[in-house]
Amino acid sequence: MDDKDFKEEDYILVNLEGVRMEQPSQKPIILLREHNGDRFLPIWVGNFEASAIALEMVDFKSPRPLTHDLIINIFNIFNIKVSRVVISRLVKDTFFAFLDLKKGEDENIIIDLRPSDAIAIAVRVQSPIYVAHDVLEKAGLKITSIEEEVEKFRDFLNHASPEDFNI
Amino acid sequence: MDDKDFKEEDYILVNLEGVRMEQPSQKPIILLREHNGDRFLPIWVGNFEASAIALEMVDFKSPRPLTHDLIINIFNIFNIKVSRVVISRLVKDTFFAFLDLKKGEDENIIIDLRPSDAIAIAVRVQSPIYVAHDVLEKAGLKITSIEEEVEKFRDFLNHASPEDFNI
Repeated sequence: MDDKDFKEEDYILVNLEGVRMEQPSQKPIILLREHNGDRFLPIWVGNFEASAIALEMVDFKSPRPLTHDLIINIFNIFNIKVSRVVISRLVKDTFFAFLDLKKGEDENIIIDLRPSDAIAIAVRVQSPIYVAHDVLEKAGLKITSIEEEVEKFRDFLNHASPEDFNI
Repeated sequence: MDDKDFKEEDYILVNLEGVRMEQPSQKPIILLREHNGDRFLPIWVGNFEASAIALEMVDFKSPRPLTHDLIINIFNIFNIKVSRVVISRLVKDTFFAFLDLKKGEDENIIIDLRPSDAIAIAVRVQSPIYVAHDVLEKAGLKITSIEEEVEKFRDFLNHASPEDFNI
């Protein structure tokens, strides 16, 4: 399957559950949750990208546009719409993703990017996030104490600031 | 003067001299140098943005596009050209910048951004970097031991890796 050829049945809609610093590693992690199912996908990301996601989730307004705000401003000015973001492949612990864009009546335009950038963009434009079946198959988790787990993410976000991400 | 109305005589062309971690603060700093003059403009930037600039200067190739590579890919796909980047204002120790873009035969399109993002973009597309006269007036330095100073930047870049930026 060519991962650039988006067919809805090959992908699973997920929700962004949260982002937090994992302890004691102090590595940021984002958690995606299957929309119509019970699997979770944790993805470790960089500090900067985690901060870009978390600050948007808590509606933090920077006086100057942050890098991902800049990307959204470019999209808006050039009338480029984000149809969806897609976590498409997992190769040796590295996730790959693409953005599915649309400009006017043009066909969909695909751009490769890292999942962290994809999600930092999705959270700003509220676009759907999809994960390829086989990625969720390989890396998805069923978390039994899920309410407890989700609570950790919520607690973290309640107090999130740029400093929490060591940036 | 509206800072969006670019007139070459209001701005000074500069070169990107380097980026390094200032000691002992461990804060990244970029150094711009007046193209036809002897003033320098140091700008403190975030770790992530410094890394994005330095890695491009040392021609580091990431297996997946970094955030600023993504911006360049978006520009390329949508046929958007970067005419120049401009450090336009300095307000209470905070620098402001804009990108001057062109798409096809359209008029110039201006987008606000932080100087660090502006320079991370400029270094990738080799676009000219300008600084407003009054910004260089206020924050420019004449560095007497300039060769020594520039050497420090070169030394740093000779060994730069993502880890140097604590990201």
